[in-house]
Amino acid sequence: MNNKLVSPKKIQGFWELMPKDEVLFEDMLGRLKKVFETNCFLPLDTPVAEFAEVLLAKSGGDVDKEIYRFTKGHADICLRYDLTVPLARFVAGNFNELDFPFKRYQIGKVYRGERPQKGRFREFYQCDADVIGEELPLSYDAECIYLYKPASKALNLEVVVEISNRNILAGLFESFGKDIEPLMVIIDKLDKLDRDEIVNLLTEKGLNSEQIEKTLKIAGTSGDIEKVLSLKTECENATYLKGIDDLACLDELLKALGVENRIFNLSIVRGHNYYTGTVFECYLLGKRNLGAIGGGGRYDNLCKNFLDKKLQGVGMSIGITRLFDILKSENLLKNEGQSFVTIGIITFEETLNYGLKIMASLREKGIRAEVLNETKSFKAKMKEANKRQIEFVLILGEDEMREQLFTLKNMTTGEQEKLNLEGIVEKLS
Amino acid sequence: MNNKLVSPKKIQGFWELMPKDEVLFEDMLGRLKKVFETNCFLPLDTPVAEFAEVLLAKSGGDVDKEIYRFTKGHADICLRYDLTVPLARFVAGNFNELDFPFKRYQIGKVYRGERPQKGRFREFYQCDADVIGEELPLSYDAECIYLYKPASKALNLEVVVEISNRNILAGLFESFGKDIEPLMVIIDKLDKLDRDEIVNLLTEKGLNSEQIEKTLKIAGTSGDIEKVLSLKTECENATYLKGIDDLACLDELLKALGVENRIFNLSIVRGHNYYTGTVFECYLLGKRNLGAIGGGGRYDNLCKNFLDKKLQGVGMSIGITRLFDILKSENLLKNEGQSFVTIGIITFEETLNYGLKIMASLREKGIRAEVLNETKSFKAKMKEANKRQIEFVLILGEDEMREQLFTLKNMTTGEQEKLNLEGIVEKLS
Repeated sequence: MNNKLVSPKKIQGFWELMPKDEVLFEDMLGRLKKVFETNCFLPLDTPVAEFAEVLLAKSGGDVDKEIYRFTKGHADICLRYDLTVPLARFVAGNFNELDFPFKRYQIGKVYRGERPQKGRFREFYQCDADVIGEELPLSYDAECIYLYKPASKALNLEVVVEISNRNILAGLFESFGKDIEPLMVIIDKLDKLDRDEIVNLLTEKGLNSEQIEKTLKIAGTSGDIEKVLSLKTECENATYLKGIDDLACLDELLKALGVENRIFNLSIVRGHNYYTGTVFECYLLGKRNLGAIGGGGRYDNLCKNFLDKKLQGVGMSIGITRLFDILKSENLLKNEGQSFVTIGIITFEETLNYGLKIMASLREKGIRAEVLNETKSFKAKMKEANKRQIEFVLILGEDEMREQLFTLKNMTTGEQEKLNLEGIVEKLS
Repeated sequence: MNNKLVSPKKIQGFWELMPKDEVLFEDMLGRLKKVFETNCFLPLDTPVAEFAEVLLAKSGGDVDKEIYRFTKGHADICLRYDLTVPLARFVAGNFNELDFPFKRYQIGKVYRGERPQKGRFREFYQCDADVIGEELPLSYDAECIYLYKPASKALNLEVVVEISNRNILAGLFESFGKDIEPLMVIIDKLDKLDRDEIVNLLTEKGLNSEQIEKTLKIAGTSGDIEKVLSLKTECENATYLKGIDDLACLDELLKALGVENRIFNLSIVRGHNYYTGTVFECYLLGKRNLGAIGGGGRYDNLCKNFLDKKLQGVGMSIGITRLFDILKSENLLKNEGQSFVTIGIITFEETLNYGLKIMASLREKGIRAEVLNETKSFKAKMKEANKRQIEFVLILGEDEMREQLFTLKNMTTGEQEKLNLEGIVEKLS
């Protein structure tokens, strides 16, 4: 045979599942897809690659070492690292043909050339739903948060959404006369560092002890809307107060939408200055230690690099690659171990063609039927059925073919019964 | 505003649909996915990029100018140009964990850096179903051809599959003592060139006029299996006769599987030496002029570059990007123009929250309901519903909220009726 074999290596950190897991993952994607469409989000599927000029517009063209970038002919091309910049490009490029508010979801692969490690991938799926419009009231923020409810229900999961509004802390820091973003970066670390470390960091940024006390009190607030409202007297800054009022309004909207598993957690800032108002993170109920399985918020001026028009946006995302990983390692995947093939048909030389006919009839009724490989012996076929965890086996000898009455064997219980074709369809449908 | 706007250009030739078409395309993909799974093909989703060494193993590492290739760190990477080499890499790399025959389907994007033109894309979808095994009888060839039947049914299309076996012409050319592949390349052009040109080409390759006559008679055979069987006396070469016998056997298997729209067309060779036996192409019934919408066949030794083990394969594919293009331009897309949103809810300031509640209730019943953007006036909302071709509008004033009785307006007929929530669910489910 060939002496110059090439090692069949996959690029490390690129997402690929074995078929059994892929069945479960695609089931998950299909359920989410249905949820987004029932919630009137249109599907979008943008190319995996974009012009570097477009993808790096935000950064002013700086090359990020995490980005896969290459040239083809004269074209300078990057693999997308998120689904948001492609959305901005799509909306700007098709501005006159789209109806606004434009609600779209996209489930697609994104690429980050970082060193792969547990829970981090170089190629992985992102799943985003966003609303874009010239004027978006808070009801759209509520709708994005609401989406976690039907989405988690479709996946048989219970989740809780933790919500804040970035303007609360932004207004507070503004009232201190300080630069907002460096302080936000510190707040973003509240979960990871202990109190002393946080106090040191805030001190370094020039906050006095009273300001630090107030910051930690506000950022440490977590609970229902009453708790948030009780902070109204802490600061008179207009941005601060608007943040609180917006949360109160959002709470009413979420109540109307039936989102019960909601909590306000004012330490949530969602990284850097991308978000401008509502921010939220979604956790598996009672399993906050596993980390957020999604998040999102309100951002302004999505298309500012591409379009001379101001467009607001609010979006939610689900980290489905990570979620799948978590569910798998926590044994929370429903349907795991379920057979892919429902019925294996065992034929003999003279009944093969009839077996294929039966197979086609069953498949046309939506039943996953399969004639087991004819080259194998009866014993080997039974072994195959067992190994592949096929639920039922239909044994098709000449007698069965003549009488049109088939022995159906349940491979788990060992139970056997004689049925005609309709009987089998009825039993397995 | 921003003075340094970047043009929101998409890379030319990369596949992207407007949302309305994307809805139809994804519906198509979803239907095909279901067909493959009912037919017991497992899903597979390999990375979009592979090591160049792997993707180019077949070509001995030659750089093909159509391939997107780049380096990242020390890695030499290509975007996949088909789904077959990644399948070979996957099977070889996971050989011990897979059950054989391994039946998998994959719907995914592939990349070819050629100059884009009508009907040709640089990024487009491929949709493949293959069976891989150590010993695959002809019933798997039949199964792959059969797949076009449920697949076309799911898409409301009628198709015909044209079938040949490459061994017939290969055996004939062998009996002439000629190199097979250069002659196959000429046969592949039968559709495009006129008879004189073909005769000239065959003459150039050293065929005498009797051989040319025989070649054109055999390659020109098209019809049922009887026609093929009548060619048995034309040549005594064993490969030739095996090709005919295999077609006769395949015909029986296809009959058993209920594939009525089949025809034998011995001019089908499917390009170069990749295929080794059965070959086939699928056309829209009565629209052969639109070109094949799919094809496939039997190939040997899929993993020869990666694995010291011989594995046979047979596969079918559907050119879904092309098919979608054809269906769209021929006005054959079902559901075109269908509304994405079923019911638009028109609220007023005091009924917004109640409207959101109604919206959530309807969506939970699977009905696509949407509260129209609250920032618009009543008139603007009605206009929006019209423009977006929303089927029904529910007007929700304070009276309606109090009485829990809603005016449902059919936007096409103008018909109105008063219904409670259950009544609406019943009407729209």
